[in-house]
Amino acid sequence: MTAATDRAITVGTRERRRIRGGEFSGTTAGLAAGNVQANLVILPKTLAHDFLRFAQANPKPCPVLAVAEPGDPHLPTLGGDLDIRTDLPKYRVWRDGELVEEPTEIHALWRDDLVSFALGCSFSFEQALIEEGIELRHMTCGSNVPMYRTNIRCVPAGSFAGPLVVSMRPLTPVDAIRAVQITSRFPSVHGAPVHIGLPHAIGISDLGHPDYGDAVPVHDGELPVFWACGVTPQAVVAEALPEFCITHAPGSMLITDLLNAKLASL
Amino acid sequence: MTAATDRAITVGTRERRRIRGGEFSGTTAGLAAGNVQANLVILPKTLAHDFLRFAQANPKPCPVLAVAEPGDPHLPTLGGDLDIRTDLPKYRVWRDGELVEEPTEIHALWRDDLVSFALGCSFSFEQALIEEGIELRHMTCGSNVPMYRTNIRCVPAGSFAGPLVVSMRPLTPVDAIRAVQITSRFPSVHGAPVHIGLPHAIGISDLGHPDYGDAVPVHDGELPVFWACGVTPQAVVAEALPEFCITHAPGSMLITDLLNAKLASL
Repeated sequence: MTAATDRAITVGTRERRRIRGGEFSGTTAGLAAGNVQANLVILPKTLAHDFLRFAQANPKPCPVLAVAEPGDPHLPTLGGDLDIRTDLPKYRVWRDGELVEEPTEIHALWRDDLVSFALGCSFSFEQALIEEGIELRHMTCGSNVPMYRTNIRCVPAGSFAGPLVVSMRPLTPVDAIRAVQITSRFPSVHGAPVHIGLPHAIGISDLGHPDYGDAVPVHDGELPVFWACGVTPQAVVAEALPEFCITHAPGSMLITDLLNAKLASL
Repeated sequence: MTAATDRAITVGTRERRRIRGGEFSGTTAGLAAGNVQANLVILPKTLAHDFLRFAQANPKPCPVLAVAEPGDPHLPTLGGDLDIRTDLPKYRVWRDGELVEEPTEIHALWRDDLVSFALGCSFSFEQALIEEGIELRHMTCGSNVPMYRTNIRCVPAGSFAGPLVVSMRPLTPVDAIRAVQITSRFPSVHGAPVHIGLPHAIGISDLGHPDYGDAVPVHDGELPVFWACGVTPQAVVAEALPEFCITHAPGSMLITDLLNAKLASL
């Protein structure tokens, strides 16, 4: 293993242990910089195959990084000591599609039939953008990225159906072109943008009122650039109404031992 | 050599011979489909080094495919029997920056000190776009691509200085994103777009009045997408006022024996 990989494992393990020990319950943006963070979806086995089919059919919002064995709270390909029941700062528990609880660990809720899915997250491609000197407005503003439900429907699978949710970053046209090039290299963390420039065309009537996250200013000479977003499964859960589901709370991601840079397809 | 390369040589040679024999003097769009076509700039040796420095500093509008020996009218890397004095359908002759003549061959003007430059042309990346099913509006309209002088200045070299000229193709946002990906693979034929969506930001006040070529409609739900254009050297000649220069006439390009597909960087 390289020194960079060794370091990623050390840093990832340390941050998960801090979270596991209850020392940290905030959002994970900026933690373990360089490490892949992941969206989490946990479903009963009876729904897991349909959800995996849904993810396969919708790889831009739902790029699958790992799927656990039924009942197994570990994801060894993402971190040796990783325990999905404790290693995220905050969870959301959904019953019949309704958000019922936001616990900081889910030991008491664990069942032998639960299947965990880790999905790619935009933090990875944001690191690549920042390293090329591209300003990300929500970071400048110290807020969460604005996210919107679109009028684009995901490809349904079983009971899973719903709108594509997108995140938006305002960029100059030159940065937008460069951002397409950079993020195209990262298909496992949402990849290239899905839309540029015309929010009404995808059913977004007001950029100032995102459905999730916080609004950010779009300056003159900038275009809104939209990427498929890992919050899509939460919008789908709200529509598909599975009897039971656990997700991460927005911004409280699973920190892995993988390096963002290793996700580049070329 | 592969069968495809053999075929490209056969087709290129045949089309150049037709043009050389005076059988064809129109624009070369659509001729020898699959073969690279090139922009032409011919300058006296006293100016050639400055022009090559200009091209090196401005690779997006001036990607150099080949430079001939001084006085040599051949470009063997682009075609075995290629004769730059006869093999283009139409030329433009410039004296002190003024267009004085549009001959169909330049034997009588040839001098021992002339240096020929072949520069990449958008026809190559347009083929790649068409093969992915992307509509090119100027083709639908049966017209020349619209081209505009921008307020972006090229990097000067010696006396060579002037505006970046861009070509414009209206695309849906989804096609614009795909077009960035496709054309990024072809840096030797202008590469990725230089601008998307905000023509005023680059000094274009009216898309309906291009400086070269023909206007095309931009429909609702489309963005104007701008690529660096091989007409840039002609705008530079008009500003730098070299004592003598020969270029291709717009749309009357040099047909080579190279395959467009071989220009892909990955």
